Amino acid sequence: MRYDIAIIGTGPAGLSAAINSKIRNKNIILFGSKDFSSKLIKAPKVNNYLGFYDITGSELKAQFEKHINVMDIGITNERINNIYAMGDYFALMVNEKMYEANAIIVATGIEYTKPLKGEEEFLGKGVGYCATCDAPLYKGKVVTIIGYNRDAEEEANYVSELAEKLYYIPMYNGSYKLRGNIETVNDRPLEIQGDDRVNKLILKSSEINTDGIFVLKDSVAPSQLVPGLAMEGDHIKVDLDMKTNIKGCFAAGDCTGKPYQYMRAAGQGQVAALSAVAYLDSIE
Amino acid sequence: MRYDIAIIGTGPAGLSAAINSKIRNKNIILFGSKDFSSKLIKAPKVNNYLGFYDITGSELKAQFEKHINVMDIGITNERINNIYAMGDYFALMVNEKMYEANAIIVATGIEYTKPLKGEEEFLGKGVGYCATCDAPLYKGKVVTIIGYNRDAEEEANYVSELAEKLYYIPMYNGSYKLRGNIETVNDRPLEIQGDDRVNKLILKSSEINTDGIFVLKDSVAPSQLVPGLAMEGDHIKVDLDMKTNIKGCFAAGDCTGKPYQYMRAAGQGQVAALSAVAYLDSIE
Ligand SMILES: Cc1cc2nc3c(=O)[nH]c(=O)nc-3n(C[C@H](O)[C@H](O)[C@H](O)COP(=O)(O)OP(=O)(O)OC[C@H]3O[C@@H](n4cnc5c(N)ncnc54)[C@H](O)[C@@H]3O)c2cc1C
Ligand SMILES: Cc1cc2nc3c(=O)[nH]c(=O)nc-3n(C[C@H](O)[C@H](O)[C@H](O)COP(=O)(O)OP(=O)(O)OC[C@H]3O[C@@H](n4cnc5c(N)ncnc54)[C@H](O)[C@@H]3O)c2cc1C
Repeated sequence: MRYDIAIIGTGPAGLSAAINSKIRNKNIILFGSKDFSSKLIKAPKVNNYLGFYDITGSELKAQFEKHINVMDIGITNERINNIYAMGDYFALMVNEKMYEANAIIVATGIEYTKPLKGEEEFLGKGVGYCATCDAPLYKGKVVTIIGYNRDAEEEANYVSELAEKLYYIPMYNGSYKLRGNIETVNDRPLEIQGDDRVNKLILKSSEINTDGIFVLKDSVAPSQLVPGLAMEGDHIKVDLDMKTNIKGCFAAGDCTGKPYQYMRAAGQGQVAALSAVAYLDSIE
Repeated sequence: MRYDIAIIGTGPAGLSAAINSKIRNKNIILFGSKDFSSKLIKAPKVNNYLGFYDITGSELKAQFEKHINVMDIGITNERINNIYAMGDYFALMVNEKMYEANAIIVATGIEYTKPLKGEEEFLGKGVGYCATCDAPLYKGKVVTIIGYNRDAEEEANYVSELAEKLYYIPMYNGSYKLRGNIETVNDRPLEIQGDDRVNKLILKSSEINTDGIFVLKDSVAPSQLVPGLAMEGDHIKVDLDMKTNIKGCFAAGDCTGKPYQYMRAAGQGQVAALSAVAYLDSIE
């Protein structure tokens, strides 16, 4: 089955894209977290979303949830690892699964946290952002996963089936649903070291010898997610219609630039959706 | 007194610009109608403004109103006739009054109604968009005002003090607050005719001999409002930061292009405000 539009991200940009695509009768699939966006639920007080004053992020999230529920828009709770432009459609990879869509809207937000020392230097040389994608490389080896959210636990469990040893470093509080053979390390990572390839992770009060390190944040660089996507600095290059350099690929929200704000994100999500609809109509 | 930011228009774009400017502690003035926007109150059902589903335009308006009221943002109920870029500030003209601001945000929406036959041809040759501005030209003459909203009645009353005869053609329903010497014509205007200058208005079932015709719609072309403003077709040319070609002049909402939608307008209003704030900080 091929969808009309695949939307990646469930922050305000992705949600707004979803409601506007659905209103135009498009057959959509929306990928992201059932919790929508950690940036939404973490906001203590929101005053700048026109129509709601003095509302918490969670309350705003509840309003958004009501909106998509009543419109019967479901969330496919999966993390997209890679998206390939196949010419007249897009292939979206989720571990062993693949989804297809005629148009995509990238609304993946932006990662605020700075890379670790050595992270960029060793990228592709033992450092990766998709543990399940690269897992086969680490059969019988030592792997360390630095997880910024719950989703990372699932990846850790999967990789632990292949790796000889798996260290999990949670960057968030809570309880962890991890297999018994995974060693949780409660320490703060500081630096990635190695020679040709990674061999060590330095933490605040310990060190781990490791063959591979996966850093699993909320979002990866869009150019990694969609190979070939043109960037402007850290952001996806878009025009006022939210078109990117790839035909049929649109973007919206924090991933397209500053200011990082809900209302801007939602407005851009709407424009991206209507541009995607116009694109689909034009290729029919 | 010189304001930090003057915002022209009280649709979603202008309101969003206002709340975001105010949150950044700027001294603002917001021009527009106490009713906000006819496009807001006329909408029968709004489903595409993320966070509100199945709401009427009036209900959405009420939400917006609550938001600006609690933030203590007032509306200056005046129509701006012209805005002049004075180099380091802007002069905003309202009939006999003048306001000053260091930066402006144009959020005046767009006029959906098509020009009348002959309207563009005779523009400046008897056809005008600001009756009070040009009133002195029509002392002792016959003037016709085609009014698309209540605000036009005030202009009509003012011009009737000078003109020998004033015809008022209301393009909306309701009762009219007009001086006794004004003749209301309930007929549909079709074409403006003349030689060098206007001399006749053809209506569906009548004709009016007239020296001048004012067409008073919700918004005039932005390039007429702000002389020198660069356009792209009917829309103000902006970049992704909502900057126009004039330093210190930003724009947001329907006046910058399609799609014409609340959420896009509100998102752009936010971006325009934050860009204006950054501009003000840079020139301090
Ligand atoms: C503490 C805090 C307070 C804030 N307060 C305010 C405020 O008061 N007002 C305001 O306007 N803004 C505020 N912001 C900023 C605001 O949160 C962001 O601008 C907004 O969330 C951006 O929306 P978005 O849809 O672009 O991205 P996000 O909200 O970041 O959502 C992106 C989503 O995409 C998902 N995703 C990423 N990659 C993938 C993938 N490969 N597959 C599947 N899903 C993926 C992410 O998990 C995330 O759920 C605040 C931010 C924080 C952190
Ligand atoms: C019947 C109808 C239904 C609609 N339904 C929907 C919908 O369901 N969903 C959706 O997303 N969109 C809808 N729209 C479109 C939506 O109304 C517009 O996109 C939106 O109002 C644009 O906002 P804006 O702030 O850019 O401009 P506007 O809302 O047009 O506001 C501009 C304001 O500026 C004022 N102004 C103009 N010139 C001056 C001046 N010189 N001085 C002072 N004030 C001035 C005007 O009087 C007006 O109040 C609908 C429109 C109509 C007409």
